[in-house]
Amino acid sequence: MSSKKIPVALLGATGSVGQKFVELLADHPRFEIAELAASERSAGKPYAEAAEWNMASPLPDALAASSVKTCDPAAVESRLVFSALDSSVAEEIESAFRDAGRLVVTNARNHRMDADVPLVIPEVNPDHLAVVEQKLRAGAGAIVANPNCSTIGMTLALKPLHDAFGVERVDVVTMQALSGAGFPGHPAAALHDNVLPFIAGEEEKLEIEPRKILGDLADDSFRDADLTVSAACHRVPVFDGHLEAVSVTLGKPATEAAIIEAWRSFTSEPQRLGLPSAPVPPIVYFDDPRLPQPRLQRDLGGGMTVSVGRLRPSPFFDYKFVVLSHNTVRGAAGGTVLIAELLDAKGLL
Amino acid sequence: MSSKKIPVALLGATGSVGQKFVELLADHPRFEIAELAASERSAGKPYAEAAEWNMASPLPDALAASSVKTCDPAAVESRLVFSALDSSVAEEIESAFRDAGRLVVTNARNHRMDADVPLVIPEVNPDHLAVVEQKLRAGAGAIVANPNCSTIGMTLALKPLHDAFGVERVDVVTMQALSGAGFPGHPAAALHDNVLPFIAGEEEKLEIEPRKILGDLADDSFRDADLTVSAACHRVPVFDGHLEAVSVTLGKPATEAAIIEAWRSFTSEPQRLGLPSAPVPPIVYFDDPRLPQPRLQRDLGGGMTVSVGRLRPSPFFDYKFVVLSHNTVRGAAGGTVLIAELLDAKGLL
Amino acid sequence: MSSKKIPVALLGATGSVGQKFVELLADHPRFEIAELAASERSAGKPYAEAAEWNMASPLPDALAASSVKTCDPAAVESRLVFSALDSSVAEEIESAFRDAGRLVVTNARNHRMDADVPLVIPEVNPDHLAVVEQKLRAGAGAIVANPNCSTIGMTLALKPLHDAFGVERVDVVTMQALSGAGFPGHPAAALHDNVLPFIAGEEEKLEIEPRKILGDLADDSFRDADLTVSAACHRVPVFDGHLEAVSVTLGKPATEAAIIEAWRSFTSEPQRLGLPSAPVPPIVYFDDPRLPQPRLQRDLGGGMTVSVGRLRPSPFFDYKFVVLSHNTVRGAAGGTVLIAELLDAKGLL
Amino acid sequence: MSSKKIPVALLGATGSVGQKFVELLADHPRFEIAELAASERSAGKPYAEAAEWNMASPLPDALAASSVKTCDPAAVESRLVFSALDSSVAEEIESAFRDAGRLVVTNARNHRMDADVPLVIPEVNPDHLAVVEQKLRAGAGAIVANPNCSTIGMTLALKPLHDAFGVERVDVVTMQALSGAGFPGHPAAALHDNVLPFIAGEEEKLEIEPRKILGDLADDSFRDADLTVSAACHRVPVFDGHLEAVSVTLGKPATEAAIIEAWRSFTSEPQRLGLPSAPVPPIVYFDDPRLPQPRLQRDLGGGMTVSVGRLRPSPFFDYKFVVLSHNTVRGAAGGTVLIAELLDAKGLL
Repeated sequence: MSSKKIPVALLGATGSVGQKFVELLADHPRFEIAELAASERSAGKPYAEAAEWNMASPLPDALAASSVKTCDPAAVESRLVFSALDSSVAEEIESAFRDAGRLVVTNARNHRMDADVPLVIPEVNPDHLAVVEQKLRAGAGAIVANPNCSTIGMTLALKPLHDAFGVERVDVVTMQALSGAGFPGHPAAALHDNVLPFIAGEEEKLEIEPRKILGDLADDSFRDADLTVSAACHRVPVFDGHLEAVSVTLGKPATEAAIIEAWRSFTSEPQRLGLPSAPVPPIVYFDDPRLPQPRLQRDLGGGMTVSVGRLRPSPFFDYKFVVLSHNTVRGAAGGTVLIAELLDAKGLL
Repeated sequence: MSSKKIPVALLGATGSVGQKFVELLADHPRFEIAELAASERSAGKPYAEAAEWNMASPLPDALAASSVKTCDPAAVESRLVFSALDSSVAEEIESAFRDAGRLVVTNARNHRMDADVPLVIPEVNPDHLAVVEQKLRAGAGAIVANPNCSTIGMTLALKPLHDAFGVERVDVVTMQALSGAGFPGHPAAALHDNVLPFIAGEEEKLEIEPRKILGDLADDSFRDADLTVSAACHRVPVFDGHLEAVSVTLGKPATEAAIIEAWRSFTSEPQRLGLPSAPVPPIVYFDDPRLPQPRLQRDLGGGMTVSVGRLRPSPFFDYKFVVLSHNTVRGAAGGTVLIAELLDAKGLL
Repeated sequence: MSSKKIPVALLGATGSVGQKFVELLADHPRFEIAELAASERSAGKPYAEAAEWNMASPLPDALAASSVKTCDPAAVESRLVFSALDSSVAEEIESAFRDAGRLVVTNARNHRMDADVPLVIPEVNPDHLAVVEQKLRAGAGAIVANPNCSTIGMTLALKPLHDAFGVERVDVVTMQALSGAGFPGHPAAALHDNVLPFIAGEEEKLEIEPRKILGDLADDSFRDADLTVSAACHRVPVFDGHLEAVSVTLGKPATEAAIIEAWRSFTSEPQRLGLPSAPVPPIVYFDDPRLPQPRLQRDLGGGMTVSVGRLRPSPFFDYKFVVLSHNTVRGAAGGTVLIAELLDAKGLL
Repeated sequence: MSSKKIPVALLGATGSVGQKFVELLADHPRFEIAELAASERSAGKPYAEAAEWNMASPLPDALAASSVKTCDPAAVESRLVFSALDSSVAEEIESAFRDAGRLVVTNARNHRMDADVPLVIPEVNPDHLAVVEQKLRAGAGAIVANPNCSTIGMTLALKPLHDAFGVERVDVVTMQALSGAGFPGHPAAALHDNVLPFIAGEEEKLEIEPRKILGDLADDSFRDADLTVSAACHRVPVFDGHLEAVSVTLGKPATEAAIIEAWRSFTSEPQRLGLPSAPVPPIVYFDDPRLPQPRLQRDLGGGMTVSVGRLRPSPFFDYKFVVLSHNTVRGAAGGTVLIAELLDAKGLL
């Protein structure tokens, strides 16, 4: 990788995930936002005016005056494109960018299950990028996808167990943060002093995606892991941080100590490569049964660390535990940037 | 039952469950608070001064000036005693009242698993009161216990399924309201914008109590139901209303329609007797997948109705669903009052 | 007034204020919702489907299946019309209904300052209804308006002081509940763990409306009270209940005791007439400096009572105090219904 | 100042302000926590065990195992002592440390109004340190105090106006964050979905402290500024960030533009000295009327920047505006550290 920063375009720049990309890339050592693109309604306006800025850190001056472009490959020059598009428009726009020879690293759900799209958590399945390696070296377009916010924390926590013992059954009940619904997302009058027992489409994603991510690559084809996931998803009045109560059945016996050791000793390619956004360690296990908690641990490792706690036996599965991860950092913008950092380190940009 | 109101003493009257009793009994057709008792610190003070009133309805004038007594059978006259005592003191005090010939109907956890104490949800196991019937008719003392707040909603929802199909395995993940922790309970700084993944002692209660409640009575002894419960308990920033994600394995096959019909057609002795606090119907099933929600349904039936929704198959159990119940009404003071109403209707007071 | 219930039409029935009207009128002794009307998008649908029901009490069965009408006088029969319309459409629609000979009692802001529209808090200026009396007796149309939610609590608290001592200057800083923004209102992501220091148009309403309400009627014309109000409005993460920090300068000296006595002895025409929604007493003053609080006192008197506390001297005005009122009951639907009850009691329906 | 880090002792290390000190000093360029002291109950325990860690960043490893000392000058060696003591014990303990020759920089309220204790906001009255300069150069003990959290943001915002136009009258209504009450502070059941209209002792501090801080030093004596403050204090369910609605009367006429320019051009000694915790600029004025908001701006400048917005005329004063500052950073631990940085830069440590 060269020392000059790589220009990137950001599609869907005005939404809440787009703003989180802007925040995370503000001082990034390898990437630099060169172009901001959004819907027709925003196009042509200065970014500060088009985006209703809702982040706790200030909008970088350099981008405030930047004129927003349309999400059209003809209007956008950068080869590397981050997509924070809403799923209602992502499918078509991302295809157009790929067909125009761009590398789209996306947070949208639309292409995640495509046969030629790696669905990547860099610590879990960096090898899946092989599917697009030839295309990228040939200068062709490709799409690489970041999984759903509720999938990432859980699947990263499952990875060391899958490697050591095999994971066969996963039952998960989520308590998801409100920022996961985007902006405007839920009305305050709907979520205040309340829990919502249903998030449309969420349980399906959480039941399907881990199978692809934890699966193998054979002859450049993805083969799903032999793993069943059952999910029940809830929205709680917490700003950031998805907490998930997980039960697992493993392929072979494992002691509590061995499982905790598997988590604590886990490290992976992003850590070995020293990627800028890679947390060290990627997983923290807490002995204190009161932890992890969204407000206390969501920002660990700049929001990229996955926190685990309360490992204990289950009468119906082997073990129960809780996982916490920051849904808009590790689960969205940060995870997507980490994928691009991995591509960069592999010389694929 | 006679037409004159029955005087009752309330132990632990100043705490948050005690205040909820005061609120619920304000205009009760059968019971009348004759005596308020609390700790030494409160004794002798007017109730309005001893209690830091935290209910949304105003403190009844009639009780505001009432002088608080000590929790000592020598200082309290009423035969019928409601206990809202903290578990740190309930064991001894309730035993003392029973030994002094009083009927203690308690919300505290201490005596729940005693061999001579019925643990009662009036719609589920009204027959368990038989264990104390002889004593009560003889004018002797007895303790009758209300189950834990997280147990009640779930167990009431399981009852029709248990009757029709048998319930063998229950996996439950709770999202419990803050009022369940009493007052002061959690500091605002601990729960604000947060979820707590651990409630000391709660999972144990939820795993043990349903076995006793759904069990049989044989020769005046309780025989636990053959049922395994696995619980994971969480505190969420909601004022009232415990939401629980439940998975069940049944003893014989059941269709979704049959289960919903079992809930919708369920009625029991409190409804047949027309007890003042008995909700009609006791269980409501919602077809809308977005319901039930704590803020919208916790007050159904004056907080005594149990709401159920989202029935769907589980790959690991037979079915998953969510249950909601008001933790300080149905789950504490209201449930306890309903037990007393049942005793009254049976002529045991 | 006759003993048969008066049929009413409800315009804007699907919104959050509309739903509150439905809730409050569910068992009303005098009014009965005969027609529900809303936008073209809802017209023709059953009400249960058109409205995203967000109230804590269940939608009355009788109305669930009722077919929603359009907000057109040709489609609506009732002479008495409650308007919960959004201000973006209320002006024109309400004028059309008035011109069609209907009596529109409205919560919308559009016609509040019209010269022929009484802006009424029944305890404060019932005499202002005189302006429409002749028209109503003649069977002609008219509009009567309910003030803004932040105006009502404060102005009702000012009324006894104005009568006894004159009110000359009012400085008010509000902390307003989220339900005041309607539905969807603020995104959860905007208001969670936050305070918003700006509510568009709100300060203007709070500065102008009390002058008309506390003013006189001279030759059937309104003459504003000689009163200056300065307002600073904030939105806080509370579901219901506007709390307002008020400073006042009076026309003549008054002791604290005299002011508190003025509040405590205050009663007015709705109380004397025994109107169904009239709280007794209309104003409660709390000696405890920790009160009133939104969660504890907003539901007093069914949400119709105004709570006042913390009276103390100000170095810049005469006195400071806080006022609390329920913004969607006293401040919106409940206040509007009370106006109609007053019209009914005066024989004007 | 030398290049080696200065060892400091932290009194009251286990409380919430103490923890914030630990968090802020974790990587401080000039200070290093050498000793942690707390109550007898904590003494002798490892800090990780004694403190119920409640910060969003992890407890530094270096301090986790550190044995907690008692708050006794005989047990503590460091000359520089930060006090995060509760006011119930601070008076005596801080006096003892001063008498033992230590420099106590405190956040506690007890000594703030003492004639020989400078009450310092480094950008506002750095000259007040002159009162202790001689003692410090002589190696004697002294106390320097940080003002109340609600005082600091407002007084810093008033400073440029006071310099340019004179500030004569200040009316302030606060909406204060829950972290300001310490830990445990308010029960969740008291503050959830609520606003508290009373904070014991708070209004008095906010009315008195600005007079000393904005006052002069004459012959080493403090002379209060000729300024009247009237305060009304409220607690709102926000984690961090006090928002205050302020009205001011100035000594001479000023245009809105001149006031905004006074804020925007303001800089002071901490900025000129480049102190590590000094924000640049110290005050930010927002043109967008929707800002500042606690969640969006409280972390500006690492929590040390004061945010101002909504300047507009008042009919009773000259102007109204809102001020926001982070109550536990700028308003407590961070402000106290900044005072020590100023003493360090002046060569007084």
